Amino acid sequence: MSSHPPASVLQSEVDRLRLQLHTLQAEQGVQNISIGNYLLERLAQLGVTSMFGVPGDFNLGFLDLVEDHSKIEWIGNCNELNAAYAADGYARVKEHSIGVVTTTFGVGELSATNGIAGAFSEMVPVLHIVGTPTTVQQRAKPILHHTLGDGRYEAYGLAAAQFSIFQANLKDKNTAASLIDRALTECIKLARPVYVTLPMDMVTQEISSERLKVPLSRSPPPNDQSTEEFVVDLIAERVKEAEGDVVVIVDACVIRHDVRKETLDFLKKTGFPVYATPMGKTAINEDYERYGGIYIGTITHPDIKKKVEQAKLIISIGGLQSDFNTGNFSYKIPTLRHIELHSTHTKVQYATFAGVEMKQLLPKLGEALKGLHSLVRKFEVPPFIKALPKEDTPVISQLWFWPRLSYFFKPKDVIVTETGTSNFGILEVPLPAESVLVSQILWGSIGWSVGSCLGAALAARDVGLGRVILFVGDGSLQLTVQEISPMLRLGLKPIIFVLNNSGYTIEKFIHGKKRKYNNIANWKYAELLNVFSEDDKHKSYTVRTKDELSSLLDDKAFASANQIQLVEVIMDPLDAPRALKVQTELSAKSDPYKERK
Amino acid sequence: MSSHPPASVLQSEVDRLRLQLHTLQAEQGVQNISIGNYLLERLAQLGVTSMFGVPGDFNLGFLDLVEDHSKIEWIGNCNELNAAYAADGYARVKEHSIGVVTTTFGVGELSATNGIAGAFSEMVPVLHIVGTPTTVQQRAKPILHHTLGDGRYEAYGLAAAQFSIFQANLKDKNTAASLIDRALTECIKLARPVYVTLPMDMVTQEISSERLKVPLSRSPPPNDQSTEEFVVDLIAERVKEAEGDVVVIVDACVIRHDVRKETLDFLKKTGFPVYATPMGKTAINEDYERYGGIYIGTITHPDIKKKVEQAKLIISIGGLQSDFNTGNFSYKIPTLRHIELHSTHTKVQYATFAGVEMKQLLPKLGEALKGLHSLVRKFEVPPFIKALPKEDTPVISQLWFWPRLSYFFKPKDVIVTETGTSNFGILEVPLPAESVLVSQILWGSIGWSVGSCLGAALAARDVGLGRVILFVGDGSLQLTVQEISPMLRLGLKPIIFVLNNSGYTIEKFIHGKKRKYNNIANWKYAELLNVFSEDDKHKSYTVRTKDELSSLLDDKAFASANQIQLVEVIMDPLDAPRALKVQTELSAKSDPYKERK
Repeated sequence: MSSHPPASVLQSEVDRLRLQLHTLQAEQGVQNISIGNYLLERLAQLGVTSMFGVPGDFNLGFLDLVEDHSKIEWIGNCNELNAAYAADGYARVKEHSIGVVTTTFGVGELSATNGIAGAFSEMVPVLHIVGTPTTVQQRAKPILHHTLGDGRYEAYGLAAAQFSIFQANLKDKNTAASLIDRALTECIKLARPVYVTLPMDMVTQEISSERLKVPLSRSPPPNDQSTEEFVVDLIAERVKEAEGDVVVIVDACVIRHDVRKETLDFLKKTGFPVYATPMGKTAINEDYERYGGIYIGTITHPDIKKKVEQAKLIISIGGLQSDFNTGNFSYKIPTLRHIELHSTHTKVQYATFAGVEMKQLLPKLGEALKGLHSLVRKFEVPPFIKALPKEDTPVISQLWFWPRLSYFFKPKDVIVTETGTSNFGILEVPLPAESVLVSQILWGSIGWSVGSCLGAALAARDVGLGRVILFVGDGSLQLTVQEISPMLRLGLKPIIFVLNNSGYTIEKFIHGKKRKYNNIANWKYAELLNVFSEDDKHKSYTVRTKDELSSLLDDKAFASANQIQLVEVIMDPLDAPRALKVQTELSAKSDPYKERK
Repeated sequence: MSSHPPASVLQSEVDRLRLQLHTLQAEQGVQNISIGNYLLERLAQLGVTSMFGVPGDFNLGFLDLVEDHSKIEWIGNCNELNAAYAADGYARVKEHSIGVVTTTFGVGELSATNGIAGAFSEMVPVLHIVGTPTTVQQRAKPILHHTLGDGRYEAYGLAAAQFSIFQANLKDKNTAASLIDRALTECIKLARPVYVTLPMDMVTQEISSERLKVPLSRSPPPNDQSTEEFVVDLIAERVKEAEGDVVVIVDACVIRHDVRKETLDFLKKTGFPVYATPMGKTAINEDYERYGGIYIGTITHPDIKKKVEQAKLIISIGGLQSDFNTGNFSYKIPTLRHIELHSTHTKVQYATFAGVEMKQLLPKLGEALKGLHSLVRKFEVPPFIKALPKEDTPVISQLWFWPRLSYFFKPKDVIVTETGTSNFGILEVPLPAESVLVSQILWGSIGWSVGSCLGAALAARDVGLGRVILFVGDGSLQLTVQEISPMLRLGLKPIIFVLNNSGYTIEKFIHGKKRKYNNIANWKYAELLNVFSEDDKHKSYTVRTKDELSSLLDDKAFASANQIQLVEVIMDPLDAPRALKVQTELSAKSDPYKERK
């Protein structure tokens, strides 16, 4: 075993040190780039091609630079919350890049708060750029429009600090470049939002472009070599004791902390069976021969549950144990049989090893365990398939809908599911190879999927993924419906399934099935594309029966997704996917209002 | 002059002291009302009839109580930002009451942030109720959905504290009632948002209803009598020195701090000419015989400017000197000729008198000055009228549009104008008696007017006002368009003028006239009502010429506003009202990007 960290990690360390030197040395180069353009060049280096946001008078000068930039396109959103959701969706699909949203002081940035907080919660790298009053105004604090009227110019930043891991105000040209670099490095390293404010008078101030020659470092710092070696030996010992009866669970942070490839290599080398949590779904291709389906505690299908919980050793990679990701905290995995690999530490049974992170650990662990491959392969993994149930009724049930859709999905599809029935329904079916599932299970903000779909579609175009397919309920769609408009304007071609079940069905299952507050107005969903569009390059459908939906899905023109399409799917208001029913039954046990239902 | 404060002020003081006693004494009564219903009863006492918001699993139990309440109606909004805007609009129109918005933990409350911050900035009394996890969960801090995943349950409250004057977590039944009372008292007294979190398990906990017998105190604390007498004498002396050449400027806080009536009494007793700022428009009926129009510094019409700035003494009532309310801080009123009456203090020339507030001061000042009436009346006030300009083109210009609309307005109309061209255009024309102008000039958040219009319409119905007329640009409408849906569902009948000038015209005047980022998609606005509606009780129009608009305005059925109506008005993208042009010319002088235009 090598006693050096991998070359990529060392190269990152070299770059990091070079940038620190730049920060400390007086910059030697000529002042030849504006602060605004310095920021844009760094974003271009990170592969950013789309910037989301809404213009406002404090950011217009910066938007001039964006509009004039050759590699970055300004995506004008309909509002700032939707823009933040779009940046989130973009970052989720475009691995190794980040999402960027630009807003204006006060009114704009605060509208984005929920979207940014969601990216924080779900560990999505998003940069929030806010155009602010000039540095002179920031000192004098006049009662400008978009202020609180009491001179508290700092209030918005204090709120933003709750939902970002780093904040920088670019008010000094001597520190602007290093602050930009620091913000972006934190953003990609920790996969969480950062907040950068750009005063109007700083946008065009010129600084040296020297630093741009050193790329930003994206690898985690090197693991401590001797601790790492100790951990590898320890895990190898536990695996041997388990005599090959080991399963792996992949979870959210495999995706968020960029260890998809390392995880797959590890699985192939070892042959371990692998299962995914809801937030880890599609981290590993679901057609992988040793993939067994979704583990979600008590809600897990019984066969899978047994396979996972009865293994002698369970290795979790990138685990995130939130309520909806664990069947209401119902894991049955005793600590003595559990090993956890995280982005900041490793846990073996009861012992925690700080500073040993999974991206570097996984390849070494794979090497150490590959000899067990033939022993491991004796443990079979029933494939994760879902047959179409036979039902007597033409009504489109949740039980039938998701398996039916699974026959429609293709490799490389990007599938975006909304909080509500869609997030639970999609768990029931396997997705094709190289498809990407985009969902927000921890934060769970209704309406998120529409903005997110816009960002996901732009990212999918960049990275060569295929169709973008959105599943959103009628209740959720109403929060953010206008974000369909930029999809049309930009010529994007998602297929939007609107599950029209006349209200907030997930809420009804949680509490208040017969309450009026869970009902909503019934819009003419199939006319939305026409209202938002300036041409006829779009198509809408309403389907009420299994046959109608099946015919549509089988239609080659429809399936080719060569224009934006919206499908209103009429469903029963009190129908829900199995997993949602079980989840809400579990939650109901602790519903403080239950006697009033 | 009486040496006692008025009886209403003393009664409030008595009530306040009684409630303090209740707080300190162990409550004697039986525990016979739930905390949720205690809160609702207090709201009903304040005249609240509509509660805005969006259901979420942490507030559903509370919504049961709302839905079952006989006096308060649940208004389900399409999203939380719109709900906060609606609560703001409701509070603006329904004097002596407050706006209430209920959201859910994290995702819901954070979406409302910009709306609440706007109410803070503009001094609008709004209560934000947030349904939160149980008190047990708040102690154990599990990774529930809607959390940040790191146990920081306090993060949302820390953000909210930036935009509210009081925060209370109702986690203890012994203090819940007094905290509710304190929050509501601060809200009505200071006319600013308060933030109350209601844990799921506290909603139905029972407490004593004894305190409900004592009404909440809404009057300000009594002025110090001897300071007040000194101030009255001092102002009387200055007024005498001015030999009757005195003008009054009414501003935002006359409306916000509930001194409309006192101000009008004062004006009638003294006979002083009166002018309004943009934020003070309609604080005094614009057909009042001594009313002269709008004062806004350099932007003021020359005749009015001279009348105001050359008076020997200027008395400002409820002044709020923000950039857009003062023609970019261009008042020409020297301190030596200026007296300012505020809700917390009085300023006479250079001297500040703390603790002398205007609501109590105005009647005494009126008494002291009424002898000057005949002298004052010698100073004439040219009436504020606006003739319809003659133009050769059929195109609907901003210059023609607003005067034309002024012939359409009727007494008791509620007129809601959006940030952008509408806020400036409406300043050019007088509004009828008892009409109410609702606009957001300091905060200036685009999209606000649509949600606000919903709240304003509900409040107008309560207080017997007339038609509700909204003016919103196409750019602004796109941010919050879905809030038209609840208007339809509730059978409200606003007239919605959509000023379609193909983009963000106000931004274009500030910077970037030819920039793509200031353009937006052109929707089929006249089809929106149909898409959102479940019936045909609505009507939409598109007008492109002066004649088309005039015919429509003259149509009796249209003007009767007996159903919801939307009028798309096609305008030139680079046309703007005079006041906006001058304002942006003033701002442009300090545009840091101007060389790049």
